[in-house]
Amino acid sequence: MLKELKILFATSNQNKIKEARAILQPLGYSVQQLLIEGAPPDFVEPQTEDIKIISSSKVEQSLEMISGTEFSDFSILVEDSGLFINNLGGFPGVYSSYVQKTIGNDGIIRILEGNNNRQAEYRAYTILYQNGKYFDSLGICSGKISTEIRGSSGFGFDPIFIPDLGDGRTFGEMSQSEKDSKSHRGKSLRILSDELRGPSE
Amino acid sequence: MLKELKILFATSNQNKIKEARAILQPLGYSVQQLLIEGAPPDFVEPQTEDIKIISSSKVEQSLEMISGTEFSDFSILVEDSGLFINNLGGFPGVYSSYVQKTIGNDGIIRILEGNNNRQAEYRAYTILYQNGKYFDSLGICSGKISTEIRGSSGFGFDPIFIPDLGDGRTFGEMSQSEKDSKSHRGKSLRILSDELRGPSE
Repeated sequence: MLKELKILFATSNQNKIKEARAILQPLGYSVQQLLIEGAPPDFVEPQTEDIKIISSSKVEQSLEMISGTEFSDFSILVEDSGLFINNLGGFPGVYSSYVQKTIGNDGIIRILEGNNNRQAEYRAYTILYQNGKYFDSLGICSGKISTEIRGSSGFGFDPIFIPDLGDGRTFGEMSQSEKDSKSHRGKSLRILSDELRGPSE
Repeated sequence: MLKELKILFATSNQNKIKEARAILQPLGYSVQQLLIEGAPPDFVEPQTEDIKIISSSKVEQSLEMISGTEFSDFSILVEDSGLFINNLGGFPGVYSSYVQKTIGNDGIIRILEGNNNRQAEYRAYTILYQNGKYFDSLGICSGKISTEIRGSSGFGFDPIFIPDLGDGRTFGEMSQSEKDSKSHRGKSLRILSDELRGPSE
């Protein structure tokens, strides 16, 4: 049995924390939100459409923030993720949370109305910092944008995202564990866990 | 006659430089692009939906970049602008250039299809740094989103933006000088010029 590893997740998104906990707890990790003076970190995001660059920046900013605090020896997890629609040049991509908040799922469906090319990818790039080492992982979930909003599970674009490796339901119509088994975040965090345990495990 | 004032505009957007030049040259300013080692500054943007905060960050980053260079005594101009659609929670706002590049004008028209509330605002927030002083100005142009793309003048969302103080044509259907006389950028830069000259002028 592995000793439980405590991970501090630097994010203000409670849905991501909930998912990371559900995915990582069975693998022997305890996931807490990183709070500095009671608040999650407020990141400056570099101007880029690359989630890898944003994640790298988030981990560096987190390490700066915890330097000299009680958390300076903890393992830090960061993530950047988004929905990338092929036919829209990757939109909404790194701006997914803003686009979700403004035009929402209805807006995406309107933009794609009558469009047969509905291929999209959910991507999550996670980085874990532990004892001076960085572990990183990209998780991709390929799918299609539905023609209508279906279901209310998950968050974000889940009610309009149909994963390719599924039965035609959207993530919004699946249970949490079903989504986690297929999702970009699930894949990314499981790969990260494998990396952490190393080849001997 | 005022002595010509040379202004370095810190932007990578050639359309903005062209407009700033057309607006400011008749007022006695010469506008050049700020290039450091041949390239425009690559700004880090704070995570915010407020163009004022982004502009403030741009001017601080510019001043850091030119410190110790041949430009350290020059007047520096920065600007952040965007289209804010009332009924879409301000979308695309600070992400206007990304949204223009991905879903484009066609995407905006699709999102608003059948929607009678088409009120929108173009906003530009400019800051000029000169001899240790900051001058700032917000220019707003109210209007409506057209139901179709009309004209090809200007740039960005101009072919779908109908200014309220006009005759129903979009900015895309107007000459440069006509647009500049009504636009957010024109207003903002003219206010800035008034501020620079002070109350005695």
